[in-house]
Amino acid sequence: MPTEQPVVLAPSASYHEVPDEEFDVLRRIGEQWSRSPGGRRLSRAALPADPDLAARVRGSSATSRFERLVRVAEEGFVASSPGTVVATERAIRPPSPLGRIAYLVRRVVVGPPLATTALVQERLSRVVALAVLSSDALSSVAYGTEAMLSVLVLAGAAALPASLPIAAVIVVLMLTVGASYRQTIRAYPRGGGSYIVASDNLGRWVGLVAAAGLMTDYVLTVAVSVAAGVAAMTSALPVLGPDSVALGVAVIALILAANLRGIRQSGAIFAVPTYAFVAGILLLIAVGLGRAASTGWRVAPVPDLPVTETLGPLLLLRAFASGCSAMTGLEAIADGVPAFRPPEWRNARTTLTWMVGLLAVMFAGITVLARLDGAVPSPHETVLSQIAAHTFGRGPLYGYLQAATTLILVLAANTAFSDFPRLLYFLARDGYAPGLFLRLGDRLAYSNGILVLGVAAAGLLVAFQGVTDRLISLYAIGVFLAFTLSQSGMTVRWWRRREPGWARSLPVNACGAALSGCVLVIIAVSKFTEGAWVIVLLIPLVVLLLSRIRSHYVAVERATAPRPPSSERTSTSPSSVVDGALLPSEQAESPDEITHLIVVPVARLDLPALRALAYAASLTPPVLALHVATDDEDAQRIRSSWSAWGDHVPLEVIMSPYRVVAAPIVNYVRALHRPRPDLTITVVLPELVVTQWWQHPLHNQVSLRVRTMLRVHAGTVVTSVPYHLGAG
Amino acid sequence: MPTEQPVVLAPSASYHEVPDEEFDVLRRIGEQWSRSPGGRRLSRAALPADPDLAARVRGSSATSRFERLVRVAEEGFVASSPGTVVATERAIRPPSPLGRIAYLVRRVVVGPPLATTALVQERLSRVVALAVLSSDALSSVAYGTEAMLSVLVLAGAAALPASLPIAAVIVVLMLTVGASYRQTIRAYPRGGGSYIVASDNLGRWVGLVAAAGLMTDYVLTVAVSVAAGVAAMTSALPVLGPDSVALGVAVIALILAANLRGIRQSGAIFAVPTYAFVAGILLLIAVGLGRAASTGWRVAPVPDLPVTETLGPLLLLRAFASGCSAMTGLEAIADGVPAFRPPEWRNARTTLTWMVGLLAVMFAGITVLARLDGAVPSPHETVLSQIAAHTFGRGPLYGYLQAATTLILVLAANTAFSDFPRLLYFLARDGYAPGLFLRLGDRLAYSNGILVLGVAAAGLLVAFQGVTDRLISLYAIGVFLAFTLSQSGMTVRWWRRREPGWARSLPVNACGAALSGCVLVIIAVSKFTEGAWVIVLLIPLVVLLLSRIRSHYVAVERATAPRPPSSERTSTSPSSVVDGALLPSEQAESPDEITHLIVVPVARLDLPALRALAYAASLTPPVLALHVATDDEDAQRIRSSWSAWGDHVPLEVIMSPYRVVAAPIVNYVRALHRPRPDLTITVVLPELVVTQWWQHPLHNQVSLRVRTMLRVHAGTVVTSVPYHLGAG
Repeated sequence: MPTEQPVVLAPSASYHEVPDEEFDVLRRIGEQWSRSPGGRRLSRAALPADPDLAARVRGSSATSRFERLVRVAEEGFVASSPGTVVATERAIRPPSPLGRIAYLVRRVVVGPPLATTALVQERLSRVVALAVLSSDALSSVAYGTEAMLSVLVLAGAAALPASLPIAAVIVVLMLTVGASYRQTIRAYPRGGGSYIVASDNLGRWVGLVAAAGLMTDYVLTVAVSVAAGVAAMTSALPVLGPDSVALGVAVIALILAANLRGIRQSGAIFAVPTYAFVAGILLLIAVGLGRAASTGWRVAPVPDLPVTETLGPLLLLRAFASGCSAMTGLEAIADGVPAFRPPEWRNARTTLTWMVGLLAVMFAGITVLARLDGAVPSPHETVLSQIAAHTFGRGPLYGYLQAATTLILVLAANTAFSDFPRLLYFLARDGYAPGLFLRLGDRLAYSNGILVLGVAAAGLLVAFQGVTDRLISLYAIGVFLAFTLSQSGMTVRWWRRREPGWARSLPVNACGAALSGCVLVIIAVSKFTEGAWVIVLLIPLVVLLLSRIRSHYVAVERATAPRPPSSERTSTSPSSVVDGALLPSEQAESPDEITHLIVVPVARLDLPALRALAYAASLTPPVLALHVATDDEDAQRIRSSWSAWGDHVPLEVIMSPYRVVAAPIVNYVRALHRPRPDLTITVVLPELVVTQWWQHPLHNQVSLRVRTMLRVHAGTVVTSVPYHLGAG
Repeated sequence: MPTEQPVVLAPSASYHEVPDEEFDVLRRIGEQWSRSPGGRRLSRAALPADPDLAARVRGSSATSRFERLVRVAEEGFVASSPGTVVATERAIRPPSPLGRIAYLVRRVVVGPPLATTALVQERLSRVVALAVLSSDALSSVAYGTEAMLSVLVLAGAAALPASLPIAAVIVVLMLTVGASYRQTIRAYPRGGGSYIVASDNLGRWVGLVAAAGLMTDYVLTVAVSVAAGVAAMTSALPVLGPDSVALGVAVIALILAANLRGIRQSGAIFAVPTYAFVAGILLLIAVGLGRAASTGWRVAPVPDLPVTETLGPLLLLRAFASGCSAMTGLEAIADGVPAFRPPEWRNARTTLTWMVGLLAVMFAGITVLARLDGAVPSPHETVLSQIAAHTFGRGPLYGYLQAATTLILVLAANTAFSDFPRLLYFLARDGYAPGLFLRLGDRLAYSNGILVLGVAAAGLLVAFQGVTDRLISLYAIGVFLAFTLSQSGMTVRWWRRREPGWARSLPVNACGAALSGCVLVIIAVSKFTEGAWVIVLLIPLVVLLLSRIRSHYVAVERATAPRPPSSERTSTSPSSVVDGALLPSEQAESPDEITHLIVVPVARLDLPALRALAYAASLTPPVLALHVATDDEDAQRIRSSWSAWGDHVPLEVIMSPYRVVAAPIVNYVRALHRPRPDLTITVVLPELVVTQWWQHPLHNQVSLRVRTMLRVHAGTVVTSVPYHLGAG
C-alpha cells in the first residue's frame, strides 16, 4: 500500500528490495553452480590486475604519498575497503573527446555535479511556507477574473453585472474546498497529493486518473502562468507585444535551467515576490474600494461591445467554469505537509486557512473593482493592468504591481517544476512511469521530469501562440478532476476507518467532493467543444499508457527474478534437456549448462580479422569462420588466403548471388541454431574503429547491421573485437 | 595505372587483389600460430552443428526429396560443395518484423532482387547508340539558343542580331571539339571519360579536377534538363505553370525510381523520343526557312524591350558563354565506346560525326529561326515553343514537338543517372570515393550513386525554384573544365607516345584544348558574379575531399594489411614484450599472445545477470564482476545477494557518489588497463531485449552507453549477452 510514502526522495528508493525467498533461490542456484564440474569458484587472486587498482602504485617511482594522490586523482578512483573503490568526480567524465565537450557544456549550464551527501531537506516556517507553497494558488487571481469576464463579454456589456454573483459562488467553492483539504492534511501528515489519496482509498485506477489529471494540469500551469506573466509584462511595456511567444519560451528556458541546476526552494527567493504581490493587490483593492466609496459606488460606463451570444444559462456556466481557474494550486499545501516545521499538520492547516482567506479576498476584490471600473478584457492589456492603471495611474505603484504579478506568475510556473517530477517519481516508484524518472540528476534534481515538463510546456505555448485564454479552459479540468477524486477518497476513507473526528470530517469532504464534481462536469460539458475534449480524450489515454507501463514492468520482474535452478525443476533429465526437448540456451544458469559455438564473419584476412580469429580461438569453444562471397572469384580469393594462412579455423563460404552480406550471415546463424537451440552462438565481429566522424561512411556498416538484426534472435551473443587505427 | 579500365562494372571489382607477398606473410603468421602451445588447428569435426546445414534433414521425417526442398526453401540456404552454401532469396530477408516490412516496401518499389548472373552487357548498333548516347547533347539545343538570347535581351532589341555571329563561333567550337573527341575514341577504345584521360596523362590531381567538374556537371544536367523539360510542358499547357517545381521534383523521383529498378538502356525506349525530336526540329527548320525564303527573309519586328545593360564586349562574352550550354553532353560517345558493336572505335567515330553534324545543324537552324521570328525569351513560354507556334501554328505538329522536347530532356536527365554512378564507381575503385559506391544494388544498378544524384538534383531544383537560366551558367563550367582537361590529356599523350598518326591527331586535340580552355576562362570570368564563383569554389573543395578520402583508405590499408608476426619482428623477447614495454593487446595475432580478463557489470543479481556471469565463467579466462552503487544501502544489497549466491565470481563495488553509472564503469576498465596494456579486457554486458519499440525507454541504456564509450579505448572487447523476454 502506498500510504507510507517517504517524502524525502532518496536515490535508494529506485532499487527493488530483495525479498527473503530470493536469497534462498540464489543460494540454490549457487549450489548447482558449485556441483557442476566446470563451476569452480573464481578467485580474486587469479585476476591479472588488482581490482582495487593498487597495482598502479607499484614500483619505486610511485611510493611517495604525494605521487599516489596524484595518480588517484588522475585515474578518478580512491580505494576504500577491499572490494570497494570510490569514484571521484574525475571518474564520471566521459573518456571520448566528444563526450568531454558535452560534459563541459553541461557543467557550464548546470554547474558542478553534487554528491548524494549534499541532499538536505529544508523545513519551512509558516510564513515562508505560505510563500513557497501558495504562489501557484495566489497567482491565479491574476487571470481568474479576466477568464470569467472574457466569456461574459460575448453577450455584450449587459452581461457584465453577472460577474458578481458568479464570483460569489466561486468564493463559496474556494472556502468549501479549502475546508475539505484541511481534513486531508490531518489524515495525511506525510503528504497527501491527489494521486496518493485517490489510489490509497479508491483503488489504483482512480489514482491513475487523478495522476493523469494532475500531469495535464502541471503542463498547463506552466504554459498558462508563463503566458499570463508575459501578458503582465507586455501590458506595461506594449512594445514587447509582438515577441510575446519568444519571451514566454525564454522564460520557460530560464526556469528549466534554474531547476536543472537544482535551485532549492529557499525562503527568500519565494517570499519576496509572493508577499509583494499580496501587498500590491490588497493595496489596490483598498485604494480602489475607498475611491469607489467616496464617489458613491458609481459604475464606470462600458464601451459598446459587439454581442455574439445571448446571455443564457450555458454562457453563465461557461463564465463560471472559466472563473474557477482562480482556484488552481489550492492543493499544494496538502501535498507538501512534510516540508513544514513540526507539528507539521497543525502548521500546514493554519497556513492553508490563511491562504484560502487571502485567495478569496483577493479574487472577490479584483472582481468587484473590475465591475466598478468597467474593465473589459482586451488582447493588448490585462484586466488587472487596466484596474491598476485606473486606480494608481501609470506611475511607480502601477509598475510595481505589474512587476510583482510577472514575478509571482513565474514562481507559480516554477512550482510545477517541483510538483511534476515528484508526481512522476511516485508513479515510477509504483511502476507506472519509466524508471528514468527515479534518477536523481547531477544536481540532485529529478532532471528527466524537469526536462519533459519544460519541453511539453514550451511546445504548448508555441502551438497556442501564447493565447492563455484558450488554454485556461483545458487547465481547469485536470485541476477539478484531481480535487474531486482527492475529496472523494477522503470521504471514503472517513467512512471506512471511522477514525476519531470522522463524523465531523466526512460531511466536509463529501461536500467538497460533490461541489468539485459538479464544477468538473460543468467545465467538461460547457467547454467541451472549446478544447476540453482534448483533455477528456487525453486522460484515459494517459491512464492506459501508465497501466501498460506497469504491466510491462511486472512482466519483466517476473521473467527476470531468480528462480530455482533448472536441475531442481526437472530432476530426471540431463541439464540441457527438458521434457525431451533441448533447453533453449538462454535458460542456462550455470557455466556447465552452456554449450558454445563461436562464429567469426570475415570479409578478408587482414589484421582486424586475424585478431578476431585469434581472440575467438583463445577462448576454448569450437570456432567457425564465415565469409560471404558475392561471386566465385571472391570465394576463390578468400580460400587462397585461408590455405596460405594454414586453415587454422574451419571456413564456411556463403555464396550470395544477390550481393547482400548482413542478412545471409544472420539467417545462417539462425539456420545453424534451429536443430540445436541449446547452443549459445557467439558471433565475434571484427570491427575497424576510425578516429574521425567523417570517416564512418567510408567503411561498411555490416557489423552494425548484423548486431541489430541478431538482437531479435534468442541465444546469440554478439562480441565486437575492435581494431583501432593508429593504436596497434 | 588506370589505363585498362574494365567497363563492364562487375561486383568483383570492389575487392582488393591479394598481392603475392601477402600470401607469404599469411603463411608466416599461420606458422607462428601453429608453434604456439594453444594454437592447435581447430577442426571442422569438432563443431557442434554442421556448417553445411545438413543436420536439418536428419531424422526419418525429412528424408523425402520434396520435404528437403521445402526445408531448404524455408531456411534459405542450399548446400553446394562441402564448405560452401548458397544463399537463396529467402536468406536475404531481414529476420525482424520491422525489417521485413522495410524489405517488402523495397520490393514493391524496385521489384524483386536480381542475381549477379542476370548482369549482361548490351552492344549497340550505330543507329541505337546515336539515340542512347546523344540524348544529352541533342537535347541541349532546346535551351542553348534561349540561354544566349536571354543575355542579349538585357541590352534591348538592338542586341539581338548579335546572336548570329555568336552562334557561328559556337558551331565552329562544336566541330573542333567533336573532331578532337574523334581522336580520343581511337586512343581509348575501352572508354575515355575525362576523369580517365586526364588522370592517365596529366596525373591524378588533374584527373580529380576533371572528376569534380563532371560531378557538378551531372547534378546540374539533371536539374537543368528536368527544368527545361517542365518548361516545354508548361509552355504548351500554361495551366501547369504554378506547379512547375513540384512537377520537376516528381519527374526526378520517377527517373530515380526507374533507375533504382535498373532499367536497361534498351534501344527502343531511347530511340523513339530522340529520333522524334530530331525529326521534329529538322522539320521545323525546313518549314521555317522555307517560309522565310518565300517572304524574302524578312525579320519579324521585336517588341520594345527595356534596356538594362549596354551592348559591350562583356555582354557578348556572357551571351557566348550561355550559348555554349548547347555543347553539353558532347563527351558521352567517347565515354561509352565499349558499348558499340565491333569494331567499336570505328562505329563510335562514325556516330560521333553524325551527332556533331546534327547538333550543329539544329543549333544553327534554331538560332536563325529565332532571329527571323523575333523570338524573345519569356518566363511563360520557351523560345523553341514560340518558334514552333509561329511556324506550325498551335496545332498537332506543335504539340508533337513540345512532347518530343519534354521526353528528350527527361532522357537527357536519365543519361546522368548512368554516368554519375559510373564516375563514382571509378573514383571509388581508385580509393577516392566511399566504398559504398562500388556496391551493386538489388537490381544490379549502382543504387547509392543513383540516390545521391537524385537527392542532390531535386534539392538544387527546389533551391532555385526551377529557374534553369541561373543554373545554366553554373553548368557550363564543369562541362568545359572536363573538355579542356580531356583534350589537354590527349595532346600530352600524343606528344609522349608518338603513336602512329600522332602528328595528325596532336594539332586537332591541341586546338580543341585551347578553344575549350578559352571558353572555360570566358565562362568563369563573365559569369563569376552570377553564381560561377560557387563552382569555382566547390571544385577545389571536392578535389580536397576526394584526396582526403584516398589518404584515409591508404592509411587503413597500410594499418590493416597482414604483416610478419611479432615474434619475427622482435625475436629476442617473449611474445608480449616488445623493447621492454608490454605489447598493446590489439597487436596480438595468435591465440597465445592474448591474455584475458573478463569484466561483468551487474546491476542486480537477476536472471540476465546470472546468465551473463555463467557465460563469462564458461569461457576459461579470469572473471571480475562490477557493481556501481549509488549509496551504502545499495552496496549492502548487492553484497548480500552475492554471498547468498555463494561468491562464485569476485565482485568489486564502485561507490558512485554522483550517481553516474556508465562513465565510472568505463573509467574503471581504463584504470585496470593502464598498468597492463597487454590485457584484452572483455566487458560482458547483460542486456534485456524487449519486444516492443515503446518499451525501450522503460529500461536504462547503461549497456549502450558503456559500449559507445568503450569504443575509443583500444584493447577492450564488448560482448552483449542478451536476455529475451518471453524467450527463456
